[in-house]
Amino acid sequence: MAIMPNTPNAVAEPMMIAVLGAAGRMGSTVCDAIESAGDLVLGPRLDVGDDVATLADSGAAVAVDFTVPSATEANVHALIDAGLHAVVGTTGWTEESLGRVRTHLADDGRGLGVLIAPNFALSAVLAMRFAAQAARYFESAEVIELHHPNKVDAPSGTAVHTARAIAAVRAQAGLAAGPDATETTLDGARGAVVDGVHVHAVRLRGLVAHEEVLFGNPGEQLTIRTDSFERSSFMPGVLLAVRAVAEHPGLTVGLDGYLDLG
Amino acid sequence: MAIMPNTPNAVAEPMMIAVLGAAGRMGSTVCDAIESAGDLVLGPRLDVGDDVATLADSGAAVAVDFTVPSATEANVHALIDAGLHAVVGTTGWTEESLGRVRTHLADDGRGLGVLIAPNFALSAVLAMRFAAQAARYFESAEVIELHHPNKVDAPSGTAVHTARAIAAVRAQAGLAAGPDATETTLDGARGAVVDGVHVHAVRLRGLVAHEEVLFGNPGEQLTIRTDSFERSSFMPGVLLAVRAVAEHPGLTVGLDGYLDLG
Amino acid sequence: MAIMPNTPNAVAEPMMIAVLGAAGRMGSTVCDAIESAGDLVLGPRLDVGDDVATLADSGAAVAVDFTVPSATEANVHALIDAGLHAVVGTTGWTEESLGRVRTHLADDGRGLGVLIAPNFALSAVLAMRFAAQAARYFESAEVIELHHPNKVDAPSGTAVHTARAIAAVRAQAGLAAGPDATETTLDGARGAVVDGVHVHAVRLRGLVAHEEVLFGNPGEQLTIRTDSFERSSFMPGVLLAVRAVAEHPGLTVGLDGYLDLG
Amino acid sequence: MAIMPNTPNAVAEPMMIAVLGAAGRMGSTVCDAIESAGDLVLGPRLDVGDDVATLADSGAAVAVDFTVPSATEANVHALIDAGLHAVVGTTGWTEESLGRVRTHLADDGRGLGVLIAPNFALSAVLAMRFAAQAARYFESAEVIELHHPNKVDAPSGTAVHTARAIAAVRAQAGLAAGPDATETTLDGARGAVVDGVHVHAVRLRGLVAHEEVLFGNPGEQLTIRTDSFERSSFMPGVLLAVRAVAEHPGLTVGLDGYLDLG
Repeated sequence: MAIMPNTPNAVAEPMMIAVLGAAGRMGSTVCDAIESAGDLVLGPRLDVGDDVATLADSGAAVAVDFTVPSATEANVHALIDAGLHAVVGTTGWTEESLGRVRTHLADDGRGLGVLIAPNFALSAVLAMRFAAQAARYFESAEVIELHHPNKVDAPSGTAVHTARAIAAVRAQAGLAAGPDATETTLDGARGAVVDGVHVHAVRLRGLVAHEEVLFGNPGEQLTIRTDSFERSSFMPGVLLAVRAVAEHPGLTVGLDGYLDLG
Repeated sequence: MAIMPNTPNAVAEPMMIAVLGAAGRMGSTVCDAIESAGDLVLGPRLDVGDDVATLADSGAAVAVDFTVPSATEANVHALIDAGLHAVVGTTGWTEESLGRVRTHLADDGRGLGVLIAPNFALSAVLAMRFAAQAARYFESAEVIELHHPNKVDAPSGTAVHTARAIAAVRAQAGLAAGPDATETTLDGARGAVVDGVHVHAVRLRGLVAHEEVLFGNPGEQLTIRTDSFERSSFMPGVLLAVRAVAEHPGLTVGLDGYLDLG
Repeated sequence: MAIMPNTPNAVAEPMMIAVLGAAGRMGSTVCDAIESAGDLVLGPRLDVGDDVATLADSGAAVAVDFTVPSATEANVHALIDAGLHAVVGTTGWTEESLGRVRTHLADDGRGLGVLIAPNFALSAVLAMRFAAQAARYFESAEVIELHHPNKVDAPSGTAVHTARAIAAVRAQAGLAAGPDATETTLDGARGAVVDGVHVHAVRLRGLVAHEEVLFGNPGEQLTIRTDSFERSSFMPGVLLAVRAVAEHPGLTVGLDGYLDLG
Repeated sequence: MAIMPNTPNAVAEPMMIAVLGAAGRMGSTVCDAIESAGDLVLGPRLDVGDDVATLADSGAAVAVDFTVPSATEANVHALIDAGLHAVVGTTGWTEESLGRVRTHLADDGRGLGVLIAPNFALSAVLAMRFAAQAARYFESAEVIELHHPNKVDAPSGTAVHTARAIAAVRAQAGLAAGPDATETTLDGARGAVVDGVHVHAVRLRGLVAHEEVLFGNPGEQLTIRTDSFERSSFMPGVLLAVRAVAEHPGLTVGLDGYLDLG
């Protein structure tokens, strides 16, 4: 990866990054990405049983957490105590646990930043955002998601989230349901209906994770498609977050909070 | 349309073509297409009440029938009696009515050709054929059809036909159902299941008629897509049939019977 | 068109709209669209030689101008004098002529709004905006435009505009050119290069106007595609502008100035 | 890979397969694929310096060769002498070297089969075949290939091959060049021109190897797309060839010679 987006042209000194869950699949990929980035240096790699408090004097400014739902909240509180910014990709957060992080950050008062994001693939994060922006301007909107056939849920959580975001914007804009004259149908042909938005799930050997959002007006169509081919697709987003977290004090939920979409 | 596929380089004399249902939407488009083709000349235009027998001495060699299901069988028999080849795009044919045309042609003995085809869009006819050819070589196969929102049936008849053709080839090749680990699902998310093949129907303002067949193997995907943007998409296929019908004595069902796919 | 995006739920009284160039192809389509919209009423239709000043007492609040470059500037000044808001789709505007409209509106002081926009297709306007927003977040970006084969310029003006917008954002973000190891190439294979962004132009019978913007990062791709199938694709954007122009005093250039993309 | 296409329903005894170049990237992937296939058993794995003649008494019926251009011809002749069928994915073959294999097989007289194929991805082989079949039926045809940015040639060899096949069929059918009214153009916008067919090459981080063939007629479009996401995409084709080679005595060039496309 010769060219990294958003790499500052001149970097004074590499920033040290700690990794929690460094032996896991995502964690080890994060370690590789940090080592390949000229403006970052890989610091301590922690795994189950290691003491997060030791990071306080490690020289690391930011920690990345790709651990497990049962560990991540305690990790984040320990990182705040240790004075590190945190970038968290572990799932399992609730409104309550997010609230406790907000309170801790406010009490701490050192201006630390914490990002908790369910998805670091820039294409997916942007596609979701663009779909919501476009939703009020089209009569019709449908979602097609396509995944490998080992996936156990259909439709994907991301597709449901996308459909809900589209539906919320349409409702706010006073739009009726999309036009649909279907009278006779085979069961399932028109997909699942999520808050009034039709969602179709394709399962195909060879695919990884893909989503297409289709918008239609008389005589025109807008399509927003995101393809995730492999785990490395998360890395540009993780690196972007690592570089930006110090400039975003407090808790941010979702990578789009760090994107400049003005 | 400056360049027509399959126009012979040198044409001795233009062939005269009669049109039945000439005042209808399809019929009038056929008339325009014939008038624009350098190697064809538009002959008599017949409508409801006109006598097909008058075509016998009209100079027309071929007749195109885009009328209504209740009239088309009688038209075809009258055309055979009048000694014309026939190209028929009207629907409503059954195995029995097709059989009567076969018998009539055999009894007639003059080597007349009759083509009866549900679809003259070359892209659609070829896509269906390619999908059937590919079906035995992939683990996974699904069909997505996309249409304007005024369509009353879902999925489209063409998509059902495509899925059945894929399923038949897979069965013959001893292939099991495509892999699918889905455990939790919203109703309809995985589409309609036609002979084991999943079919998804999208309805979107602005679209006309579109179909995508997706095939997957480990690490690879094959996609065959056909887009029909307007009624004129049928014309290259109608003209191809008009030019070829005299060389195909007897009854042919489906335009692919005239295509050279060697 | 049963459902119109952005139709207010409750409309006190239909707003009257005048049309300049009402006999032209775009103008007559605009007239049809206004007549189909429940919250608008079609007012005077003007053509070459008609006096714009008569609109002052016509009851029309807004005028739409789809005329010709040689007439549009005079029309707009006459509309301002007559006290109408103006929505203009005619091309040929320069920085100088735009400046004169700005000055006139400021001198007038009645808070009239004028929108001058090169493109009213919502999908195209949004695609351009999304492409610019995404541009800083990907290593690679290329543009493919596809049009009917009667088009005389390649690439399209819209594609050049899109490429320039992407290039400007990338430059501002300090991104180098996209990676490209090509050593041996056939002339033209890599497309035209517009400010460092590769642009490919496809010409295909049957197409109308289509554009695809592709963004790539390690392991992921984002695709934004817009399809314009026919002239009617401009109408939802024209109606949106007609409804919104009174709330946007002064001159606005480009329909995206009226879109809520927060 | 739970389900393999074309696995016979009942297999008497697993067939033993030898692999030449077994330590290479492709060779080792072949070994894995054979070991995962229930109806095949992995036999001797040979590398540089190993003696092919030893395979004669190994029990292996078929050998797969993914070695290097300088070694492959000698390997094939040694395999024929040893009485094995051969499936060869190594490049570098010329008309002369192919002729020597044909002669050797004829002299040998035991009915051995040899397949030499530049591409084992079924989606790519089928796409090429379908493109050639469709070529005579459309006014317009263009090729877009999309690859990772480390590729050194543009357009890809496969895309050039596809364009030539399309051009040959069009010439045979008496079709003129596709319509194109372009008068003003930026250099390269219309792509490379290969035997009259326009070919566009996109280079995008995140992609692997993709090709799209577009056909257009008035009002309709046919698209054939093939995506190769990773090396494993070759394996279904290699396994198909291994299972079929004994039934195809003599030399076959190209995997499509083994496909049933009736």
